Amino acid sequence: MKTFKLTIEYDGTGYHGWQTQAEDITLQETIEKALTVMTREKIRIAGSGRTDAGVHAYAQVASFKTRAAIPAHGFQAGLNSLLPNDIVIKACEPAKDNFHARFSARNKTYQYRIYNHPLPIAVGRQYAWHIRKNLDVGAMEQAAGHIIGTHDFKSFEGTGSPRDHTVRTLTNATLSKTDDGYVVFNITANGFLRYMVRNLTGTLADVGLGKTSAERFRQILDAKNRKLAGATAPPQGLFLMNVGY
Amino acid sequence: MKTFKLTIEYDGTGYHGWQTQAEDITLQETIEKALTVMTREKIRIAGSGRTDAGVHAYAQVASFKTRAAIPAHGFQAGLNSLLPNDIVIKACEPAKDNFHARFSARNKTYQYRIYNHPLPIAVGRQYAWHIRKNLDVGAMEQAAGHIIGTHDFKSFEGTGSPRDHTVRTLTNATLSKTDDGYVVFNITANGFLRYMVRNLTGTLADVGLGKTSAERFRQILDAKNRKLAGATAPPQGLFLMNVGY
Repeated sequence: MKTFKLTIEYDGTGYHGWQTQAEDITLQETIEKALTVMTREKIRIAGSGRTDAGVHAYAQVASFKTRAAIPAHGFQAGLNSLLPNDIVIKACEPAKDNFHARFSARNKTYQYRIYNHPLPIAVGRQYAWHIRKNLDVGAMEQAAGHIIGTHDFKSFEGTGSPRDHTVRTLTNATLSKTDDGYVVFNITANGFLRYMVRNLTGTLADVGLGKTSAERFRQILDAKNRKLAGATAPPQGLFLMNVGY
Repeated sequence: MKTFKLTIEYDGTGYHGWQTQAEDITLQETIEKALTVMTREKIRIAGSGRTDAGVHAYAQVASFKTRAAIPAHGFQAGLNSLLPNDIVIKACEPAKDNFHARFSARNKTYQYRIYNHPLPIAVGRQYAWHIRKNLDVGAMEQAAGHIIGTHDFKSFEGTGSPRDHTVRTLTNATLSKTDDGYVVFNITANGFLRYMVRNLTGTLADVGLGKTSAERFRQILDAKNRKLAGATAPPQGLFLMNVGY
C-alpha cells in the first residue's frame, strides 16, 4: 500500500460540505468516486477536517492509501480531468505510511471575508459575507487580540460537536481592510471546534457594529457559554487556507 | 414621463445575455419584470448595448421611462429587494428626457481576465479564461499597440452582427499582469462590434502563446477578414466596466 497526500482547492457552493453523507453530494465522496474510477479500488480519503456546506478551500489536505501503480503526478492529472471544475487538485505527493491528513496536522489557517459596503456585490457574492453598515475594524482587532494564545473556546463552539475538550491554541488572529471594501479575518490555530471561525466572526462583527465591546468579547470568551456569543457568520465567506504538518 | 438612468452590476453566469429573447432568461427581461412589479406599467429598458451569455458587468447602464411617482432612490431600493442576488443596482439617477443608454453613450470600457497558470482555479473560475501555457505579455502589449486609434475592425467582428460600418476608435488597449497570476486586458472605444473584445482577446492570446507574432496581428487587422483572426475567447472572462456619456 502506498500513501498519498492531496492538496485541494474547491468552491464549496455546490456541495453539502466535505464529509460524505447519505443523501447529499459532498466533496469527499466526489473525490473518492474519481479515485475509485482511477484505481478500481474502493478508496477512502481522510480530510484534514470537515468543512461545512458552502465553505471553500484554497488548500484542503487529504490522504489516502492505494495498491494501484499510479505515480503521484498521474493521480493529479487524472483527478483533474475526472473531477468537476469546482474542484482542483493543486498537488499530489507520496507520503510516509503513517501520514494521516487529520491526525498529522499541526495547525490550520482559515480566512473569513466580509464585504463591507452599503450595497451588495453580484460578482463574487459566493465568496463573502455582505455587511452594509460600516465596521469599526480597530475595535474588531482589539477584540481579536483577546483570543490569541491558549483558551477554552466553548463559547464559540457549535452545538453537537464531537471533541474531547474545547481548549485550543491560537497563534494568529488578525484583521485587515482591503482597498476594495473587504474586511479580512485571518486565523491560525492548532485546531478548531465546529463553527468556531464562523462563531468568532459573527461575534467580531457585533463588535465592529458597536453591538458588543471588545471588553465584552473578552467576557464572552471567559464565560464559556455559547449563548452569549453572536450569530454564526454565513458559510460562503469562509476559506480553509492552509494545513500545516 | 420621467426618464431614469440605472447603473447595474451583474454576474452573467446564470443568464443568456442581456437582451430579451423568446425562450431563455435574460438580464433585460429580469430587470423589466421587477420594474413592472414596482410601477404597474409595462416598462422597456434600453441597455447601453448587449452583453453575451455568460459575460459580466460592473457598470452596465440602462435607461427607462415611467409615469410612476417613484423617486430614484425608491427605484434603487425597490429593485435591489426584488431582483435576484446576481444583479445589483449600483445607482439610479433621474436623467434628461432625451437620455438613452445606447444612443447617448460616448465610449465603453471592457476588461478581459485571463488566469495564466499551469493549474486551473476552482474559486473564481466563473470570472476568468484559464490558459495553462505561459503568455508572453510583452508580445501581447506590442500587438495591442496596433489597435489604438481609428481602424476598420472587420477582422474581429462576429458573424451576423447588426451594424452600419465596422470602423471604431480605440482610445485605450493595455495589458497588465497581476501578482496572483492574471493577465488583464483593458480596452476603451467609442463602440464595439459584436464579439470584438473576445475576438481581439483570442487573437492576442495566440500572440502571447507564440502562435502569431505582433506583426502578424497587425496584418490580420489590416486584412479586414474574420477568417484570419484567432478563436473567440470564452465569455466568462469578460466584464463591462464603464459606459461614458
